[in-house]
Parts: sequence; C-alpha cells; structure tokens
Amino acid sequence: MQTATPTGAPPNPGIVFDMLFAHQRTAALKAAIDLDVFRAVGEGPGDVKSIARQCSASERGIRILCDYLCINGILAKEGASYRHTPTSAVFLDPRSPASIASTAQFLGAPQIGEPFEHLAEIVRNGHTSLPGSGSVEPENPMWVVFAESMAPMMAPVAGPLAELALEGKTGPVRVLDIAAGHGVFGIACARQNPQAQITAVDWAAVLNVAEKNAQKAGVADRFTKLAGSAFDVEYGGPYDAALLTNFLHHFDPPTCIGLLKKVRAALKKGGRAVTLEFVPNDDRISPPMAAGFSITMLATTGSGDAYTFRELKAMYEAAGFSGVTEHPLAPSPETAVVGLA
Amino acid sequence: MQTATPTGAPPNPGIVFDMLFAHQRTAALKAAIDLDVFRAVGEGPGDVKSIARQCSASERGIRILCDYLCINGILAKEGASYRHTPTSAVFLDPRSPASIASTAQFLGAPQIGEPFEHLAEIVRNGHTSLPGSGSVEPENPMWVVFAESMAPMMAPVAGPLAELALEGKTGPVRVLDIAAGHGVFGIACARQNPQAQITAVDWAAVLNVAEKNAQKAGVADRFTKLAGSAFDVEYGGPYDAALLTNFLHHFDPPTCIGLLKKVRAALKKGGRAVTLEFVPNDDRISPPMAAGFSITMLATTGSGDAYTFRELKAMYEAAGFSGVTEHPLAPSPETAVVGLA
Repeated sequence: MQTATPTGAPPNPGIVFDMLFAHQRTAALKAAIDLDVFRAVGEGPGDVKSIARQCSASERGIRILCDYLCINGILAKEGASYRHTPTSAVFLDPRSPASIASTAQFLGAPQIGEPFEHLAEIVRNGHTSLPGSGSVEPENPMWVVFAESMAPMMAPVAGPLAELALEGKTGPVRVLDIAAGHGVFGIACARQNPQAQITAVDWAAVLNVAEKNAQKAGVADRFTKLAGSAFDVEYGGPYDAALLTNFLHHFDPPTCIGLLKKVRAALKKGGRAVTLEFVPNDDRISPPMAAGFSITMLATTGSGDAYTFRELKAMYEAAGFSGVTEHPLAPSPETAVVGLA
Repeated sequence: MQTATPTGAPPNPGIVFDMLFAHQRTAALKAAIDLDVFRAVGEGPGDVKSIARQCSASERGIRILCDYLCINGILAKEGASYRHTPTSAVFLDPRSPASIASTAQFLGAPQIGEPFEHLAEIVRNGHTSLPGSGSVEPENPMWVVFAESMAPMMAPVAGPLAELALEGKTGPVRVLDIAAGHGVFGIACARQNPQAQITAVDWAAVLNVAEKNAQKAGVADRFTKLAGSAFDVEYGGPYDAALLTNFLHHFDPPTCIGLLKKVRAALKKGGRAVTLEFVPNDDRISPPMAAGFSITMLATTGSGDAYTFRELKAMYEAAGFSGVTEHPLAPSPETAVVGLA
C-alpha cells in the first residue's frame, strides 16, 4: 500500500504531510478494533447513534472515527449510515472467520510501537532502544501475545508453506517447528500428512498457546513441545523437515548461519529447511511491504534485517545446505526459502 | 494521499496491515528530519557511509531509514546511493527556502501525538484526553511551537488569503488578525497594502514570534500586538477586515457563533471576516485531507471539528454576517470562507 513516487514526479508537499499524519491511521484502526466498531457496523443498522450505543461510546467520537475509517477505505458510508466494505466485512468484523483484527494486539503492542518514538536515537546507535537484545530477549512475554494474536495473519500461507516442507511426502515424517509461536505452520504439516509428527520449539509460555491450537486442530497427539531457546535446546531428530518461520530476520548473518548449522545437523540427509521471510529484491526498496519490514527490525532488534534472497542463500550455503530455492507466496508479502541438508 | 477504496473492490488485508504499520511512516520522517538526513543527501555524495558520518549515525540505521524513505517516495536510490526526489529537494532539504521540515516540530509534538495513544478512550468519552480544554487551554506553550514551526505550511496560502481580505482595497485599512500564531496572514496583508495596519491577537509568548516575523518582513512599524484570549480581549477597531485562520475548528458551533458576533461588532459595516479552515464536503468523508482533519480535533480538543461550508455559513449568519462565500485555495487542502459584516 506504500507507494513509491516516480522519480520525475513534481514536488508534492502532500506526501510529506501524509507521512506526518500517518500515525493517526494506526491509532484510528486500533481504537475501532478496541471499541468493537466493526462488530457494531456488521450487526447494523449503522447510524451514529446506534453504533455509539453498541460500543458504549460518544456520538461525536463515533461519527469522527467512522468518517475517518471511510476516508481510509476501511468502512463505507451511505447517507449518514456506515456499513462494511468487503475488506472490513472479511478481515475486521470479529464474526468473520478470516478476521485479522487480533493482529492489532501484537502489531499495536507497546514493545513494537514504543521504539518508534525513539527512532532517531535508534538510527544514531544502530540498534533497538529496547533493553537487552530487544524483542528476542529470553522469555519476552510479547511472543505470547504474538502467538495469541497473529495466527490469522499466517493462516493463508500455512498450507502452502507446509506443502513446501512435506513436498508430497506420505507416510511417517518428523517436522521440527522452530520458534513455533502460534504453531500454525507445524499444525498445517500435521493436517497435510496424517502420519507427521511435529516437534515445536519455543518459550514454554508460548508453546502453551501452540498446544491449544494443536488441540483445536485435532492433532495434539502428534504435537510435542520442546521448551527453550532455539539456540540452546537439543533438537533431537533426525527430522525430515525444519520450519524457520519469521525467525531469521531477528538476527545478524553470523547468528543465522550458526543456527542453520544446528538445524542442518538435526535433519536427515536431503531433509528440507524451510524459512518464511520478508524478502526484498536486491535494491532493498521493493516490493514495498517486504522491503519496509527492515525498519521494524531496526527498531526492535539489535542486528536483525529483512534479508534478500541472495543473502539468505549465502547463509544457507555457509551452513552447508545446497539446492537453495525461493518461493514467493503471493498474495502474502512473504517468501519461503528452501534448502536441502 | 489517503485513498478511499471503491466500495466494490475485493477484500484486501493489505489495507488493514498498511494502517497498522502506518505509524512507522511518521516516525521515520521525524527521525530523518531530526538527524538532518535531508541536508546530508542534498550535500552528497549520498552513499550510506557518507550520510552516516554527516549525521553522526550508524550505517545500519541510515541504510534502513533511507531505504524506508525511498519505499515511501520521499528519497530516490541509484545503485547504493540516495538522492533527493523533487519533493524532498524542495520541501525537506533545510537549504531549500520552501522547506516544510519545521512543521514536524509541531505536527510531531507530544501534545499532538500523545492523545492518539488513547484514541479509544477519547472516542468513548467524546473529548480529548488532554487536561482542561486540551490544545486551546490558556497560554498552552504548544502554540509557541506552532508559531515557530508552521509558517512554511501556510506560506503558499498567505497571499491568496490576504487578497480575499483586502479585496484590492488601497489606502489605509485596518486588519485584525485573530489567533495570529506565526503572523504570516496579517503580514501578507501588510505586504499587499503598504498602508495596512495589522493588529495581531494571541498569547503574549506567541505574539513575540509573530513580531519577529513582522520585523523580518519589514512591516513591524505597522504591526501591533494585542495579547490575550481572542474571547476576552477588547478588539478595538473598527476594522476593515478580520482574519480567523485555523481557529474556529477548535470550538463547538455556539462558541464559534459567540466569537463571530464579537468579531462582527469590531468590523466596519461591510467589513470582511475571513476564515481559513479545513472544509469537508457535506458527506464529511471528502476531500480526504480536509475531512480527515476532524480526527485531530477529536483527539486534541473538547468539542472542535472540521466544519462543512454549510455549517460555517450557518454560524456566520447566526452571528449576523451576510453574503457568505467559500473560496477553495488549491493546491492547499484548506478553504477560505468570507462573510460581510
């Protein structure tokens, strides 16, 4: 959605003011989710007075907030009444099974947002202003919030990623799900292959969330928890596949290579290490969402980044993997990278 | 720059994620201005190492920040070097006379940004979370920051607004500039009519900024300070014209009508009251920037709003004005409204 201006475009102060006001857009969407505005709009009738009553909020506040959501393409307005756009109906109404409203809990969490209030200092120093190693500090409770809220964002890519990991393999397979979080990637493997055994690595409190998701999905009997740091725990094995989803971007290349070596040692010969990442092109400024992810890593980690495929391939190869391939998972902004042990 | 989605557009989670990440855009632009990145890019040579040295910042931070500014159309990239877009050259390089970089000081001030961290609460209660009457609390120091930083945003409309106020009148005229701030509107009148006398009303600390600007413009001998609240001070008069720029939006209609009555009493018969405002269409959701301004008023005031022309005309008429007309000042997002006493 972030759009680059053609180099030859005339000077436009609107771009500058739009950026200076952009924080309001995040605040407005978070407020609407917190107040349950999208449920109220979905239930109708959609006039200001009704929504205000349904949300226990003021009419002035609801009118201005809903107008602002219309301006930003999130809601629609007919006369003085608000109604869903296709986007808000599918992705923001809590009654929709595809709702991603919960992701605001993680993406809007103080530990994600607060460093951006000190971004000049972070750029000056070159690393997050969060204490210690930032978001990857051991047992950081933000990953419980992540596990509890981010599964809906990952649901559309879980199936395709599991396919890449299993590659049609039937019969008994063992899958190592590193930094499992909500666990949806390992669970997708277990669903695709009824004999797949999943071993999920993460902090203990996070694994409890993944375990509940495995129970809901009916695969708890093939789901094993391995609590601790992915850098420290004994993986066991050997495994047929290892998943490294949204994990490498938190670390610098030497750390990633060290981890990939450890993963390779736990894989069978020819086993597959599958990462899911925001992978910008070599210019590092396209495509917008993948490339733009690096500023989140600047703000919240000590040395993480959004790595190009060239860089990820080099890390894989330095760790002894071969046959490294990239697999864009459009319409998701993320890309899977597969390497063979 | 905010774009409404056509109602029939397919569901798009990208709109949702773009809003959840939008706060990063504000943080990135503020950080780049604070670190003087735009001066460094303008001076060249534009590689990461040079910019980092010029800005006393880390190379990791500068690379990721500058890439992010490219993604957002603010900078351009050639190979590994950054250079100005036409927009950043004209509006963000501090060496440019049209630079609006200083506006980040006001638009990014804690008193403007902080309420958005409590927007759900504000929508619930219907008024700002700032103490007292929010941004219009007496002697609020944020208006000194406003006066010191926002003149560049207003420079392009000051001339056209002064033309509407003076309407080609030559010879001695008296102009009352209410909530003068930086003073650029009254100063523009003084420049257009060499016999115009300006009386500027604002808090004393703010008027000191306006006075300096009047000195710089060479019109200090026709510039008189009238310190205090626009609601309380005696205006004197009678005046040929009164300016009410970006002021009415802070208050509810009865308060605006009361003020307009006071203004009318200080004008000569047929004198002109000229407001500058963000004036949305009757649908209140277009055009985007004027309509979107109401959320700033929700967040920072007790009862302010972005009023439609219909509403402003009704307020003018309730205060006894006639012949009320609107004058869009494109490409500015603002509109002038003129009423005759």
